[in-house]
Amino acid sequence: MEKKLWGGRFSEGTDQFVEEFTESVSFDKELALYDIKGSIAHARMLGKQGIIPEEDAQRIIKGLEEIKKEIEEGRFQWKKELEDVHMNIEKALIEKIGDVGGKLHTGRSRNDQVITAFRLYLKEETNNIVQLLRELKKALLKKAKETVDIVMPAYTHLQRAQPIRMAHYFLSYLEMYNRDEERFTDTLKRIDQMPLGSGALAGVDFPIDRQMTARELGFSQIMRNSLDATASRDAVIEFLSDAAICMSNLSRQSEDLIIWNSSEFFFVELPDKLTTGSSIMPQKKNPDVLELIRGKTGRVYGNLIALLTVVKGLPMAYNRDLQEDKEPVFDTVKTLKGSIIGMTKIIEGLKPRKEIMEKAAGGFALATDLANYLVRKGMPFRNAHHVVGQIVGYLSSQGRELESITLEELKKFSDLFEEDALKILNPYYVADARKSYGGTAKERVIEQIKYWEEKIV
Amino acid sequence: MEKKLWGGRFSEGTDQFVEEFTESVSFDKELALYDIKGSIAHARMLGKQGIIPEEDAQRIIKGLEEIKKEIEEGRFQWKKELEDVHMNIEKALIEKIGDVGGKLHTGRSRNDQVITAFRLYLKEETNNIVQLLRELKKALLKKAKETVDIVMPAYTHLQRAQPIRMAHYFLSYLEMYNRDEERFTDTLKRIDQMPLGSGALAGVDFPIDRQMTARELGFSQIMRNSLDATASRDAVIEFLSDAAICMSNLSRQSEDLIIWNSSEFFFVELPDKLTTGSSIMPQKKNPDVLELIRGKTGRVYGNLIALLTVVKGLPMAYNRDLQEDKEPVFDTVKTLKGSIIGMTKIIEGLKPRKEIMEKAAGGFALATDLANYLVRKGMPFRNAHHVVGQIVGYLSSQGRELESITLEELKKFSDLFEEDALKILNPYYVADARKSYGGTAKERVIEQIKYWEEKIV
Amino acid sequence: MEKKLWGGRFSEGTDQFVEEFTESVSFDKELALYDIKGSIAHARMLGKQGIIPEEDAQRIIKGLEEIKKEIEEGRFQWKKELEDVHMNIEKALIEKIGDVGGKLHTGRSRNDQVITAFRLYLKEETNNIVQLLRELKKALLKKAKETVDIVMPAYTHLQRAQPIRMAHYFLSYLEMYNRDEERFTDTLKRIDQMPLGSGALAGVDFPIDRQMTARELGFSQIMRNSLDATASRDAVIEFLSDAAICMSNLSRQSEDLIIWNSSEFFFVELPDKLTTGSSIMPQKKNPDVLELIRGKTGRVYGNLIALLTVVKGLPMAYNRDLQEDKEPVFDTVKTLKGSIIGMTKIIEGLKPRKEIMEKAAGGFALATDLANYLVRKGMPFRNAHHVVGQIVGYLSSQGRELESITLEELKKFSDLFEEDALKILNPYYVADARKSYGGTAKERVIEQIKYWEEKIV
Amino acid sequence: MEKKLWGGRFSEGTDQFVEEFTESVSFDKELALYDIKGSIAHARMLGKQGIIPEEDAQRIIKGLEEIKKEIEEGRFQWKKELEDVHMNIEKALIEKIGDVGGKLHTGRSRNDQVITAFRLYLKEETNNIVQLLRELKKALLKKAKETVDIVMPAYTHLQRAQPIRMAHYFLSYLEMYNRDEERFTDTLKRIDQMPLGSGALAGVDFPIDRQMTARELGFSQIMRNSLDATASRDAVIEFLSDAAICMSNLSRQSEDLIIWNSSEFFFVELPDKLTTGSSIMPQKKNPDVLELIRGKTGRVYGNLIALLTVVKGLPMAYNRDLQEDKEPVFDTVKTLKGSIIGMTKIIEGLKPRKEIMEKAAGGFALATDLANYLVRKGMPFRNAHHVVGQIVGYLSSQGRELESITLEELKKFSDLFEEDALKILNPYYVADARKSYGGTAKERVIEQIKYWEEKIV
Repeated sequence: MEKKLWGGRFSEGTDQFVEEFTESVSFDKELALYDIKGSIAHARMLGKQGIIPEEDAQRIIKGLEEIKKEIEEGRFQWKKELEDVHMNIEKALIEKIGDVGGKLHTGRSRNDQVITAFRLYLKEETNNIVQLLRELKKALLKKAKETVDIVMPAYTHLQRAQPIRMAHYFLSYLEMYNRDEERFTDTLKRIDQMPLGSGALAGVDFPIDRQMTARELGFSQIMRNSLDATASRDAVIEFLSDAAICMSNLSRQSEDLIIWNSSEFFFVELPDKLTTGSSIMPQKKNPDVLELIRGKTGRVYGNLIALLTVVKGLPMAYNRDLQEDKEPVFDTVKTLKGSIIGMTKIIEGLKPRKEIMEKAAGGFALATDLANYLVRKGMPFRNAHHVVGQIVGYLSSQGRELESITLEELKKFSDLFEEDALKILNPYYVADARKSYGGTAKERVIEQIKYWEEKIV
Repeated sequence: MEKKLWGGRFSEGTDQFVEEFTESVSFDKELALYDIKGSIAHARMLGKQGIIPEEDAQRIIKGLEEIKKEIEEGRFQWKKELEDVHMNIEKALIEKIGDVGGKLHTGRSRNDQVITAFRLYLKEETNNIVQLLRELKKALLKKAKETVDIVMPAYTHLQRAQPIRMAHYFLSYLEMYNRDEERFTDTLKRIDQMPLGSGALAGVDFPIDRQMTARELGFSQIMRNSLDATASRDAVIEFLSDAAICMSNLSRQSEDLIIWNSSEFFFVELPDKLTTGSSIMPQKKNPDVLELIRGKTGRVYGNLIALLTVVKGLPMAYNRDLQEDKEPVFDTVKTLKGSIIGMTKIIEGLKPRKEIMEKAAGGFALATDLANYLVRKGMPFRNAHHVVGQIVGYLSSQGRELESITLEELKKFSDLFEEDALKILNPYYVADARKSYGGTAKERVIEQIKYWEEKIV
Repeated sequence: MEKKLWGGRFSEGTDQFVEEFTESVSFDKELALYDIKGSIAHARMLGKQGIIPEEDAQRIIKGLEEIKKEIEEGRFQWKKELEDVHMNIEKALIEKIGDVGGKLHTGRSRNDQVITAFRLYLKEETNNIVQLLRELKKALLKKAKETVDIVMPAYTHLQRAQPIRMAHYFLSYLEMYNRDEERFTDTLKRIDQMPLGSGALAGVDFPIDRQMTARELGFSQIMRNSLDATASRDAVIEFLSDAAICMSNLSRQSEDLIIWNSSEFFFVELPDKLTTGSSIMPQKKNPDVLELIRGKTGRVYGNLIALLTVVKGLPMAYNRDLQEDKEPVFDTVKTLKGSIIGMTKIIEGLKPRKEIMEKAAGGFALATDLANYLVRKGMPFRNAHHVVGQIVGYLSSQGRELESITLEELKKFSDLFEEDALKILNPYYVADARKSYGGTAKERVIEQIKYWEEKIV
Repeated sequence: MEKKLWGGRFSEGTDQFVEEFTESVSFDKELALYDIKGSIAHARMLGKQGIIPEEDAQRIIKGLEEIKKEIEEGRFQWKKELEDVHMNIEKALIEKIGDVGGKLHTGRSRNDQVITAFRLYLKEETNNIVQLLRELKKALLKKAKETVDIVMPAYTHLQRAQPIRMAHYFLSYLEMYNRDEERFTDTLKRIDQMPLGSGALAGVDFPIDRQMTARELGFSQIMRNSLDATASRDAVIEFLSDAAICMSNLSRQSEDLIIWNSSEFFFVELPDKLTTGSSIMPQKKNPDVLELIRGKTGRVYGNLIALLTVVKGLPMAYNRDLQEDKEPVFDTVKTLKGSIIGMTKIIEGLKPRKEIMEKAAGGFALATDLANYLVRKGMPFRNAHHVVGQIVGYLSSQGRELESITLEELKKFSDLFEEDALKILNPYYVADARKSYGGTAKERVIEQIKYWEEKIV
């Protein structure tokens, strides 16, 4: 009983089950160093403002720094019965420096204390993720430069559609991950705001200096409303949503590469060190990293839904439900960082199989261009499409590919076909014909590579 | 390199990152004892069938039992580089008894091995949850018996609607949790099926005896198709869905009790030992357990979505994505069990405040019955509703409650009102008038209590 | 103003926006015929019990039957300002037969009325879905019978794993859809329960006969608690969850078939009439039905989350939030039925390409069996796996398939190899070796086909 | 058969079921005017670039404008068998102006056409939502100005915590909705990018001018990669996520107001015109709009999950699954706009009940300040908290409120209490003591009102 810091009005000790069910120290100790950082800034401010004697502030800071060291060195003893990381540290402080440690909690509440530590953590990890996304973008850019001269089929409906330069494929994901990075950067504006100094919910009746603590902690903004500061979690959900979207992009590229890694496609080869084997099938070389990225998308979606559910219909201001904001975030940070690193390694390590892709890029994947040929000769597109559709049907019923057609045969379908029509039946020719801005023609692809080279470095 | 059991065809060691990203032993060691149980049954069968010498089988079993003991006593050393719980145990077995340990994997694959251990675990935990739901139902029944003679307002739209006997409220949740129990029991039929003997996906080419292992492991059914057995997870998702629905019911009752525990309602009092205080506000006695149950609903919804996402669009058969099936389940089991226990303790411990509820159950909550009075006198219901609506408007504009009305006033609104109309203005009278089967009249409530007394014991 | 049936105490008309925001008739008219069915049963019971004159009951029933006909013939005028389907019908009834129509609402409330109509609807549609699943199972069984003699590779990690008989694949989905059917059947027990007679929440104070209405409406059970009956939606969520799981299974099979339909795999051919073309690429024959099934999985997951979110933390009893229960269900019913029908047609129409699959089923997919050969000669499995892993590496570095190996070469890797080892290098041989119960050997597959033939008819 | 524009290679008509299952015109006609806008810009560019004769371009534009008028006037006949809005319009164009209409599709594909129309729509609606959020912020600011002088209790754990000025509450939501607005504005950067000119996926082999079409359509940016432009949907998901977060904020405020509108709290009164009645309980005045906002949060969460699920593991580039991107967005736009409007009307119309709130703001909600009093006298906060906790326990066991305590009694708990301690026992005094930046003191609240007055106008 005595151990509870809030036990004054209680006539009965806490049920053992309740202690275990409500504890958070088993996971929120991840915030320990951020909590100490926040507390040191707070103590320094209390001293400077004369809210507590300067000397007391110094003792508190010294005590906290010792605790920090103990934690970093793995010597700190966490106790579940002390509920959370914050109480654990405060209790240790009081044991270390005596009753004066109790003064640290002057002018703040656990509500603003916790969310401050959480925002410090989230800010740092968001920056880490942005950094990892940049590495991934670099890997894609490098791989794009290596694959400008490889033609492959692009797919729609998992059917060969049109030939593209492989670099074009890598640049498309570079665009997606670049938007992911933008999203995290935008979100950072809303994370980088200091709640400290909001008290339990209504502000503080000591002459605190929030500008000073914000400066010390490196926050760009100070939250303007104490209720909002302690009770809202929308910026946290936004972070989870950025992560879910990023995972969705990673899952798509994983799927591409898993398919390309099959014996049937065999467009790329993954290095041994990034694949794993089977306990029973000696021939297997499995793309487990990609499968796990794809699979872990589920947990990040789940984490997003978890926190959205927590805040649904939650009245103001702080409710204990909000303790559930941390694990989904910790898990998401770990998962997303691992997935980005994994994809970066895969991109760096994969070896394209040029001949196989070139072969697949020909054939019926050239049909659109045959139709466009007719359009240039004056036929409305819809009719041209119909004519070439019939050619495709004619050839595939004979098991023939498009390149095998003769001029005579072409002429049976339309008088507009002439000698130069046969020239089209080449995937490099066809890819390079798509010269519109953003298209897959070699010059366009190189133009984009240059654009990113300037931006990314 | 050497340590990988599948490393035969690999010319390069596994990347350190890949090892960490793909490992599962940090969480799937939760399955350790189930894995050993499955392995012992498998080894015994191999020996009995003569697939391996009986003597080898005995040595394997003995080795496994020693490992089991080490695990139970916390002496076992888990190694992340050995990927998962199964490889950890197998490696330890080989170290303990030599190469003969390698024979354990004859006639099975990690695919059927893992899902067998998982199903053993899930079966046990589903039974545990069913048991806990029964305890909760008992607590509700007991509380219902104690509160038959308390009248309270039932709410719709969080507006006082009609008086009910408080027991009626507790019985309504008993119905919901009873359906939760039914769902888990139904799901159990689909969990209690043995995949062992399905190999990697195609079955096994040794003369194994699946009836024998099923008997030994206590499975009621044997899965009939080896692809399905190793690759499907729908029964697991069904479990998560049962849990999500159960949490939704728990979250609703939590909300009721949190509202009732506010100073404004003050319908119930929670025991000190089940509430917690505030670090800053000495007067607070917070219903944290209820808030956490409500909040933890989020994580269980998230776990459901996580696994639904994993299997979406996943091709046959086993893919590494499926490794992601475990953590959502472990977390859900822990969360749901804690939430049911928490609610049971709250139900057992809460003290109803009879006077306050009685008072709230009167007033306008009696209006429907005044309308029904007119219906009995021959007025169509819709007109009666309109007349009483006007009476309510008339009184509330004067700040008066329904009980304050006089017969003279009533008659101004309709000639049909007579002396006996005033008798209605009593919440006990009104509650007991609802004598339809399933209604809140005392005799009906007692009837239901008896029904459950017979069923639950 | 006058039009509102509940307008008695209101001094101000409803805001136009509120009318539109809160209306439900635009979607709940789907329940019209179920509502009328419920009302007719209620009216008949009211008459029989003497709660309203028998003659009034007859007039009400006749009026309702006329309205039913108007609705069926598309002549009924729905009005948004009348809020919902129930008010629309009641108002029409009063217009048709006069004030006596108002008596229909005696002894019931919109709360029990609505959920009764919804349960009638849900029961019928659940039965429809069960029926469609049976058709799908029949199609799979038929296709299994046609493909017993086709060997194909089964995949793990989208890597060729081991040869199976194609029938084995179809039977695996038969198992999954069979569990889907079981789930819907289990859920039906909880849907098939009558809430009518529960009033707004507390029961009814007229001498109604719920047994009679239940009989008339074909409900097997009567809900035992009026609060529960009007306020709970867990059975509805359970339905949505069954649907989500079923869609997840359908999405997996869609993925399989989309991949198999690619030029690179080309394991199956889909009939023209079930595919669509491209507006720009004349060669395309796209598996749109399969892609849409896979894609529509998203909306069903979304519908499940939608209703789970609605009930999270919702206090007792009825709240307007619950109006949101209908659209997710209507959309899910339509989507799921379409998806099952679509898959059934695809299964019926697909043509396997035997030669291509046979070829793919050989090669390294036979490696496990080479390892098992060594095990039978006495080598521990783990060592055998390692040996064969080295053989695979040796051959693939030379671009050779497994069948090309000679006995001399084999012996270099292990002395245990003898002449009969070469016999293994045949996918039919290997598939048929998996004779364990549930395995892919021909006799086992036929055994399962017989099992289902007896069950399904 | 003939009607299919892509039917060239097909030897069999489309199955009737497939036509219905795959059609999208029943919902994507919402995009009709955006599609025409895109087509007009495309046609103008084709003419200008000489890709088609200028004269043909003019005829096409004229035809499209006529169709636009027909649609606006409700005269256009939509046909399901023409699949989608785009085919409907193109077919109508060809019927109207002859074969030349077929030229419109030169240099574009349905893939870039559809996503262009969708982005035009989304841009407009995002701007509409931003505008509505501004109106909501204005309403909150106005209400804050009206309620500066009302003191009410703020709650944590739904327990009275500390007194605040009511304006402080309204300003807290202003902050949240302001961040919602910021999010939509950030997302707009990623929506306002033109995909047109990307063809099916690889770009276009006609000399199109994307700068010109972008200018004409008002897009700020042109998408740089044709694969990305046609296949990615992350910006759409981001929009859905912004909406989900905004709904979560709206759901929280709805919950607050529903609770405050209960008879037990009775802190606010909602105008008749924004509430609805009960069909059975004449006294009810239900906050249906707020309940529906809270409930509709579910569908928006569901829509987010729907699209996240669709793209999970979807390979590049366009797949038919992506057709499922539209309905979740249309539904979200409608729901969110309605919910914001609803909340704005509620905020504008609600009447605070000052006396009731003032009373509730006193009592134990003042306890923190009594503790702070002791801190100022030199007692460490943790001890002060403990002392006041005991005072609270002492008084509440006697059924007394904090204001009833005497100086003598206070001194029994601590010698530090003096005369001025009693002054604290007043909610206005206590609220105004929280003078920290962001706190609830009157001067701070007015400071914030001024801040927003300058920003919002």
